[in-house]
Parts: sequence; structure tokens; C-alpha cells
Amino acid sequence: MIEAIKNHKSIRKYRPDAISGEVLDSVLKAGTRASTTGNMQVYSMVVTTDPVLKEKLWEAHFRQDMVKTAPVHITFCADFNRFNTWCRQRDAKPGYDNFLSFFTAAIDALLASQNVCLEAESQGLGICYLGTATYNADLISDILELPAGVVPVAAIVMGYPEGEVPLTERLPMDAVVHKEKYKNFSSEDIDRIYKEREESAQTAELLKINGLETLAQIFTDKRYTKNDNEFFSEKYLNFIRKQGFL
Amino acid sequence: MIEAIKNHKSIRKYRPDAISGEVLDSVLKAGTRASTTGNMQVYSMVVTTDPVLKEKLWEAHFRQDMVKTAPVHITFCADFNRFNTWCRQRDAKPGYDNFLSFFTAAIDALLASQNVCLEAESQGLGICYLGTATYNADLISDILELPAGVVPVAAIVMGYPEGEVPLTERLPMDAVVHKEKYKNFSSEDIDRIYKEREESAQTAELLKINGLETLAQIFTDKRYTKNDNEFFSEKYLNFIRKQGFL
Repeated sequence: MIEAIKNHKSIRKYRPDAISGEVLDSVLKAGTRASTTGNMQVYSMVVTTDPVLKEKLWEAHFRQDMVKTAPVHITFCADFNRFNTWCRQRDAKPGYDNFLSFFTAAIDALLASQNVCLEAESQGLGICYLGTATYNADLISDILELPAGVVPVAAIVMGYPEGEVPLTERLPMDAVVHKEKYKNFSSEDIDRIYKEREESAQTAELLKINGLETLAQIFTDKRYTKNDNEFFSEKYLNFIRKQGFL
Repeated sequence: MIEAIKNHKSIRKYRPDAISGEVLDSVLKAGTRASTTGNMQVYSMVVTTDPVLKEKLWEAHFRQDMVKTAPVHITFCADFNRFNTWCRQRDAKPGYDNFLSFFTAAIDALLASQNVCLEAESQGLGICYLGTATYNADLISDILELPAGVVPVAAIVMGYPEGEVPLTERLPMDAVVHKEKYKNFSSEDIDRIYKEREESAQTAELLKINGLETLAQIFTDKRYTKNDNEFFSEKYLNFIRKQGFL
């Protein structure tokens, strides 16, 4: 297996060492080799290293330390702005003010992001995706001065890792792989698939700290609650609309 | 640069050779190593090789030959079905019936898909993304019997390439990379960025065939028209809603 894929870990602690321009350029170039719809390349990568801007991004990303400590922050955006500008300059009427176009551009951005992450890891860097990019896309947009047609869909921090972290376990393969058609899960399947994770020492610790009965409740009641999901859904949809996609 | 990233090409012609179970498993396993939000792994990969099912998928993917000729077809889905089933079985109330949860799951699926593609390429296979996965997500769902909570976001074909294809050119790096903040494009920037592509022999040929004046019009008037985009936006949003995410 490609080493960078096999050894991928989310890195949350970084050494202060800068990333050289040469290394950073090659990592970004790897992003541009990913497939994009119709080779339109309707995405952008905003690379932020300035401490003042990173401090603002840190606020938008729920004050996660790594946004300040990692030397590089990259925001991956669904981006029809450049393409639309080109169309208008070439006597062509762009029809990309709709959800499908947003989603198409989001796919471009996300495939590029994964190339960037793997190439970074293959060069000894560490990365961590920030789920908060969609939560506070509007604030991030203000900080990075994104024009209409541009919406953040993912963000990462990048730098040289401080210390070692173990590989994260994954569910058994049949939790995510379906042969030929979708095969739904029996109650026994669910028990088996989640068994190892539910019986881990880490889960016991989490349940004790949170005073909850099941690992699933940690997700539904603490980490990803219905209230938060609904609040941020509305906020993200409003922003996608504001940027001209709905 | 990682060889598979550097040499990536979309492959549209395949040899009939099957992919061994061992190779396929290792490629799918690479998918599972990608980051997912909160390690929830809210995605699925439906791997279809059966010719009868592939014939149906071929219809849904606008009858693109490669869907029939490539030995393997993989549909990557945003998938909260397994997670919701687990929650309900563990006395936890899932709150994932909203747009943010759909988009979170779509990110999981897309990052996994890129890992799968790169690992496949590193093992001598070729792949091609099918943009039609979002256009006809509803038809694909019928064929693959996807339950509520599951929405196709990408699909690929995979197999051993027939013949050679050249690398596809990309726009200059500053078309997609922004330093610190977003830098909008002047009219001169646009001219420079698109110059090589607009002046290519391939473009001259396309304009002649289509009787159009500019390359941009090929996109707006032929390949990705406003009417089509609006039609498929509505259809995709309706399907996302039907699957319980809006």
C-alpha cells in the first residue's frame, strides 16, 4: 500500500519549523493533479501562514490550538468564481448558480485536498482536517475575503509533527464495503462491527467522564448533537445561498 | 511526488481482465485509511462487478461504455444508515437528518474515494470518475437498493488500462492557489491563465465541430448548460431530501 495512505494519522501537535517554499509548492502541485469535473478545476486552495490571519482562523475553527501552532493552514474551496469570470470575459453565459454546480465544485476541492494531504505526508509532514470549515464557512470567508462563487468545504493544518501518535483503528471492512448491492445491517452485524470500539479502554474512560451509558450517546449527546447540526446546517446553507449557489 | 499522484490519468478504455480479490481488497482497505469526521466512517463503497447490474448502472451513467467494459464499478455514498442503526440500537437518538450531516458524510466518502483511486493506480490499475453519479443518484439508488440515509456522491470505474493516454494539462498554479487571502483575478490574469488551453489544437477542433466562438461557450452551451444544471440540481436535492437529509 502507498506508504502515506498506510501510515496516515491526524496530527494535532506541531514543531514550529516552517515548511520551505519548495516543499509547499510540490505539495500544492500534487493537489492540482487530482481529477476534476470536465477538467474545469473549479476549486481553490487558500494557503495561510501569516500569524495575524491564523489567529483569526483559530477563532473561526473553535480555537483549536493546532490552527495557531501549525505553520500552514489551507482552506479548500468550491470555486466557480474564476470560471464564471472567464466565461463572462469570453461571451459565454455561465449557468453555475445552483446546487449541482456547488456540489461539483466541492468534489473537485475535496479530491484535491486528499492529494495534498497524502503528498504532504509522503514528504514527512503531518496534517489534520478541521471539520469546523463547514460550521463557520461564513466567518472563514470574511477572513480570507472570498468573493461570490467561493465556499470553503474543508480546511487542514500542516506542519512537521511533534512526537508520535498511534494509527487510529477502523471498523471492520464490511462496515463500509458492500458487494454488488447494498446489504443492510442486522442487529448482530451492528454488535459485531462496533464490538472492539465499544469494549476499548478509551470508551470506558469516555463514558465515565461524560456519565453516559453507551458510546453512541457520546456522539448524539456530546460531540455531534441534533441542535448543533441543525444550527450549522442552516448557517452553511445560508452561506452557500449568499455565495450564489442556491 | 507520489508516483500515483504524478501519473494520474482518467482511463476510459479497459482490458477485460478481472481484478483479483486480493488486489481489490487492498485497494478498498486504502479507502478506509482516509480521515473521517470524528472517526465515524459515515460513508460506504458499493463494489459492483455483476454484468447485469453493470448494464443497469451503464444506463444510469448516460450509457458511457466504460461502465460496461471496466470490470469493477464502485459507488461512493454519504452513509448515515449504519451509524443511525447503531445509535438506535444503543439507546441514543441520532440527530443526523440535516444538510450538515449529509455534507459531512459526503466528505468522508470523497476522501475515501481518492485513496481508493490512488492505491488502485499504484497497483497498475486505471480509474475514471463518473460525474453522472450525482445526476442520477436516484436511479443508482434503485439499482443498488440503497436505504434511507445513503446518497451516492461519486462513482468510479476501475480496471487494467487498454493502451496509453497522455497526462492532461492543468491551468497554471496561480489559477487555484491563493497566498494568505483570496486574490481575485484581473482581466489580464484570466487571459494569461486560459491562454494555453484556448490556443491548443484540441480547442480549435472543438470550436470547429460545435460552431462556437470561444472555449468557454463549449462549457456553457454544450457540456454543462444552465438548463441541465438546474434540472439535475432539483433532482439531486429531492433525492437527498427523500433519503432523510433535508
